[in-house]
Amino acid sequence: MINRFARITALALSLMALVTASAAEERGGLILTQNGAALIRSELGDIPLFDSTLEQVRKEIDEEIAFGIDTPVPRDFSGGYTHQRHKANFFAMQKSGALFTILEEEKYAIYVRDMLFQYEDMYLDLPLHPQTRSYARGKLFWQCLNDANWLVYAAQAYDSIYDWLSEAEREELESNLFRPFADHLSIDSPQFFNRVHNHSTWGAAAVGMIGLVMQDQELIDRALYGLADDGLDTTSVDNDGGFIKVEGQEAGFFANLNEPFSPDGYYTEGPYYQRYAMYPFLIFAQALNNARPDLGILEYKDGVLLKAVDVLLNLTNSRGEFFAINDGQKGMSIQSYELVTAVNIAYRYGGKDPRLLSVAQQQGRVQLDDAGYAVASDLRNGLASKYQKGPANYSDGANGDQGGIALLRNGNEDLTALFKYSAQGLSHGHYDKLSLSLFEQSSEVLQDYGLARFVNIAQKGGGNYLPENTSWAKQSIAHNTLVLDETSHFGGSYDVGSQHHSELNFYNADSDILQVVSARENNAYPGVALLRTVVMIKDFGLEKPIILDIFKATTSSVHQFDLPFHYLGQILDTSFEYSAEPALLPLGESSGYQHLYLEGVGQTSDGIATFSWMNDNKFYTITSAVEETDSLLLTRLGANDPDFNLRRDPAFIIRRRSSGDTLFASIIEPHGSYDRVTESAVDSSSHVVNLTVIRDGADYTAVTFELTSGETKFFAMANNNADPNTVHTLSIDSVEYQWAGPYLYAER
Amino acid sequence: MINRFARITALALSLMALVTASAAEERGGLILTQNGAALIRSELGDIPLFDSTLEQVRKEIDEEIAFGIDTPVPRDFSGGYTHQRHKANFFAMQKSGALFTILEEEKYAIYVRDMLFQYEDMYLDLPLHPQTRSYARGKLFWQCLNDANWLVYAAQAYDSIYDWLSEAEREELESNLFRPFADHLSIDSPQFFNRVHNHSTWGAAAVGMIGLVMQDQELIDRALYGLADDGLDTTSVDNDGGFIKVEGQEAGFFANLNEPFSPDGYYTEGPYYQRYAMYPFLIFAQALNNARPDLGILEYKDGVLLKAVDVLLNLTNSRGEFFAINDGQKGMSIQSYELVTAVNIAYRYGGKDPRLLSVAQQQGRVQLDDAGYAVASDLRNGLASKYQKGPANYSDGANGDQGGIALLRNGNEDLTALFKYSAQGLSHGHYDKLSLSLFEQSSEVLQDYGLARFVNIAQKGGGNYLPENTSWAKQSIAHNTLVLDETSHFGGSYDVGSQHHSELNFYNADSDILQVVSARENNAYPGVALLRTVVMIKDFGLEKPIILDIFKATTSSVHQFDLPFHYLGQILDTSFEYSAEPALLPLGESSGYQHLYLEGVGQTSDGIATFSWMNDNKFYTITSAVEETDSLLLTRLGANDPDFNLRRDPAFIIRRRSSGDTLFASIIEPHGSYDRVTESAVDSSSHVVNLTVIRDGADYTAVTFELTSGETKFFAMANNNADPNTVHTLSIDSVEYQWAGPYLYAER
Repeated sequence: MINRFARITALALSLMALVTASAAEERGGLILTQNGAALIRSELGDIPLFDSTLEQVRKEIDEEIAFGIDTPVPRDFSGGYTHQRHKANFFAMQKSGALFTILEEEKYAIYVRDMLFQYEDMYLDLPLHPQTRSYARGKLFWQCLNDANWLVYAAQAYDSIYDWLSEAEREELESNLFRPFADHLSIDSPQFFNRVHNHSTWGAAAVGMIGLVMQDQELIDRALYGLADDGLDTTSVDNDGGFIKVEGQEAGFFANLNEPFSPDGYYTEGPYYQRYAMYPFLIFAQALNNARPDLGILEYKDGVLLKAVDVLLNLTNSRGEFFAINDGQKGMSIQSYELVTAVNIAYRYGGKDPRLLSVAQQQGRVQLDDAGYAVASDLRNGLASKYQKGPANYSDGANGDQGGIALLRNGNEDLTALFKYSAQGLSHGHYDKLSLSLFEQSSEVLQDYGLARFVNIAQKGGGNYLPENTSWAKQSIAHNTLVLDETSHFGGSYDVGSQHHSELNFYNADSDILQVVSARENNAYPGVALLRTVVMIKDFGLEKPIILDIFKATTSSVHQFDLPFHYLGQILDTSFEYSAEPALLPLGESSGYQHLYLEGVGQTSDGIATFSWMNDNKFYTITSAVEETDSLLLTRLGANDPDFNLRRDPAFIIRRRSSGDTLFASIIEPHGSYDRVTESAVDSSSHVVNLTVIRDGADYTAVTFELTSGETKFFAMANNNADPNTVHTLSIDSVEYQWAGPYLYAER
Repeated sequence: MINRFARITALALSLMALVTASAAEERGGLILTQNGAALIRSELGDIPLFDSTLEQVRKEIDEEIAFGIDTPVPRDFSGGYTHQRHKANFFAMQKSGALFTILEEEKYAIYVRDMLFQYEDMYLDLPLHPQTRSYARGKLFWQCLNDANWLVYAAQAYDSIYDWLSEAEREELESNLFRPFADHLSIDSPQFFNRVHNHSTWGAAAVGMIGLVMQDQELIDRALYGLADDGLDTTSVDNDGGFIKVEGQEAGFFANLNEPFSPDGYYTEGPYYQRYAMYPFLIFAQALNNARPDLGILEYKDGVLLKAVDVLLNLTNSRGEFFAINDGQKGMSIQSYELVTAVNIAYRYGGKDPRLLSVAQQQGRVQLDDAGYAVASDLRNGLASKYQKGPANYSDGANGDQGGIALLRNGNEDLTALFKYSAQGLSHGHYDKLSLSLFEQSSEVLQDYGLARFVNIAQKGGGNYLPENTSWAKQSIAHNTLVLDETSHFGGSYDVGSQHHSELNFYNADSDILQVVSARENNAYPGVALLRTVVMIKDFGLEKPIILDIFKATTSSVHQFDLPFHYLGQILDTSFEYSAEPALLPLGESSGYQHLYLEGVGQTSDGIATFSWMNDNKFYTITSAVEETDSLLLTRLGANDPDFNLRRDPAFIIRRRSSGDTLFASIIEPHGSYDRVTESAVDSSSHVVNLTVIRDGADYTAVTFELTSGETKFFAMANNNADPNTVHTLSIDSVEYQWAGPYLYAER
């Protein structure tokens, strides 16, 4: 449906091209427009955030100019000198161009021109980059991706000085640098350019933006719709194991807008890569919006690009750091320049949402363009309002029908549960269906490991993905989800995983007391139906909400079930006895288990196991209903890790060997805190004294839990009926419960 | 010498008592004086820091009053309810008393009175606290120490309402509560009261302060000079293994001022306990200063109490957290109430040092008394100046002749090396002679483990010292110092360790380029002389200083030498090959080695070993001159730790088996940083390419090191002559070096 729409739009665009070509003589500016620059100049000195950004950029570029231009012969991986230098160059060029347009000081134009001609001087003679690791090698950098980064920025720089250059200079740059550069990224590298992937988005933006500056319709079309004939087959994979070509899939910028974004604006690879991809998406969109307002690119797919900005801002902890979903390096945040761009563009072209102004204030800088000006001047005018994060349920998949990501989050944003029931997430996806992560403000309570990579740190595998990303970080056991028979979901096969997604059962975050999400996964293990329900309850006078976690497996065969809780920090106490291992050996052979040391094994006949720990001066307890034959494993990461690439993080794993259906019910309870200055421990003990599964059937699941206050609570759910109006009746211990909708939370 | 002085002062005091007794009718106030309160009242609303503190305290106490008074029957260890409640009570009483004096609102007096009478009602019938672990059990708390805390605060509370109470009420409180309480802490508990120890300081302050309020000269004398006959023998030890009685040692407040403080103001137990002890020292001193100004308590021992405040402020990282020396829980900082008291008193009575005002500003609150008023009003008057921390060399021991603690610290306070060559540090001392810790701002580069204890966290051994404090934290291998034959210094014997201390060789921090400290230890291992020299060099255009570490052992016998570097974070790279262990086993049997897992072993014939890691987004490299037969051990803490009481921290250990003298020369180099938002790694590689020992003799040691810039540097030292004027001549490779003083740093 969307693809057909794209085609119709394409047709309209081609017609438009005839019109715009003639109007192209009047250049308005690619990103920073001539009108915008004039307005900015008239207000300089009176738009604090813009002024301070300009001052900082000016200082930075003056230093670069003083340092001189260096365009070394390409040699290094990311992290090495030539990589870092070429990267610094494209940022500097773009900024210098913006300074020229705003300040009209010629030295900034000269700097851009001289640098471009240094590149022009070398480009045609450049072989492929000497590092051969990439599936699509660049010329300035080891991979086309970085070359595309370069061109996206260089196009902006070129645009800034376009009118200032002579026609002969433009001709020379375009023939010897820009066109062959764009061709290398597209025609010469279809495996990079002609797919749906964040790499290709960069490729499209690069080719399209230089096309817009050069007023070259062929390049623009190539960027928007991809290469018609790419000669790719459907078996090739990239460096991350992702498929390059999927039968019948479109390519180009529109296809990349269609495919990875769900209608809600969630990007299937997760927020870390969404952040990375947002820049080319939005900067190219901004350019198209300026050059082709008729295209309505920002309204495309019901304004998905602007929605995506909101999703990205909401998928952060209290410090504005993105939650790690799939491959994602922790610590990346709304402070990144991509998010500055995103927030500025979303503000200026997305209805001037005043909440975005407070985010911009936090970011402390703006883009040096029309959008940045709009933000800075409205901030000055006092229009900002708080950006309140909330619970959310974001669908995944181009049509929003491939599962999703849900956030349960209490009012003051102190506690956030992230529940992943999404699609595979392309080549950066991990095998963690129905996984749960938990955050208290900026602390990780139950962590997702993230990626096994030290981005741009040359000593660690050139800054690239490490072998442990595949052998550990992607595996199911590296996540807080159920793992059967020491095998990852879909057997850890990307091929199989890519064909499936989980399904939402129900989601409701309307109540202050209870938020809930429930989803099922029927394909992770053949013949096994998984249903996990996560409930955040803020009740019974406790200071912090608790998480009730009910994980049901339906199967007719015998399996070993492992439910890991990846806590951090130090164990305080357990209700069960355990023996500490005298020597540490790997817990298993493969699927990530080879990386876990077994530190201790416990067991209990109490019916519940409690496990308390302390992290970041806060206390936590898991209370889980367990069977006498369950093993309670204490593990530590780090086995079979010869290069010490993995952190030595702990986990608590409930292991059960079961024939047929089984149910794991747990309460994860944040409580209290410790002050290292007053040395006072407040609320250091759990408030949950019991947790009992009182019904575990195909139709209904019900649990009760008791609190130190003496209260007993009851939660029941229909396992196969999410209809909000169906009335259910359940009789337990001769008490009859009746309710409408998929679940009931009540006093017992 | 000092003891004799104390005795003379005692005599003077007894004479004074006759005078003061008659003047005692005019009560001026113990801590908050009547005059002070009048002045404060007149300025309320115009002294911001005082006003905000008052408002906060008022809110807190109003909540306590609303909550009601609870004085439960004593039952729990620290961390448990009854402990926490009685602790909260004494703080509340003292604050409520201050509010009454300042605000003259009777409800605050009533609250104090009612609480005191509730205690009075129970006290005489109270048995010893039911928990039997302490060597000196209290009645309200499990140890006398906490009872003494109670009385120090209760004395202030009582003083605040003294005139407001009827004589009959005072008589009742004094007979049934205060006097028996003071007697229990002293006469009934000589093992607690009559020694030189932070416990006894609290005891003296408690007894002395209630004595001052009650105007009871006998109690005051007992506090100042101790019990004449305590019936203690010299073999008993306390819970920490410290000796209770040392032959010939005085007791009481003066003795506690004489003994643990060096003339420089360093407290032999280390800053964590110094901070704890400062409160009773200073609050009692403030009371004595008010009641007995003639005594000149703050000038005693050349103003040692005020010097101690300065030492304490300087022994902190950039966040104001104390360096962990001996038993010390990390995170304790200048934000503690003890330091608020210390800074306020030191300011008011110690010459109004304007640097202390900026510390008070950071603390964000003041004492509600004359000293707090002085700070708040002078802050308002804009008198504050920056508290610049610097290098320092603090002597240890009552007479300053028992070694010491040195800090090397660069100008902007970014890097601090802490070198410990002190005495044992009483019962909280660790066995780490010549140990080195290194800090970059608030990050630990080379850590001291600190203590193995979770103070006030009941789940962890009642919040008390854990067995691993003895088996790991106190052991030499838990520190960055040389360990021979897998045995701690002095065989880990407190008895032996207490008889010795290291000796300063030389110290110099006069140069911007080079700061140096050198000390020797001849008693840690029989027949082995240890000499360690630590040099901080800020030179050759590097952004951060480097640490040159030269550790020389002189012996005629065969030993195994282990030099551990307790880094934190993740390994990036090593210059040497190593094999990672497939299974983790303890490195040794005892002396802390039983707690270390061996993760890997390397070796190299390169002459140097480099070891790089990343912590807290910063890069570090150790470059060490090693021999081909040295083993390079990678270890991880956590073996034989059944209750998971220890953190899983790593270490890099250079192990050498050597017959006769040996030398370890290393450069510890902080370099660069990583930004998780821009993902840029700056300066991630070491700048040191070589390190060579070119002279290792009994007389001289000399090393050279080479930098990536091509520069080669030379450091030479005389091992046995610290005289600054002696001229040395050393010929190496036919180059003749001549210099005056103990060391030479030059170009090679």
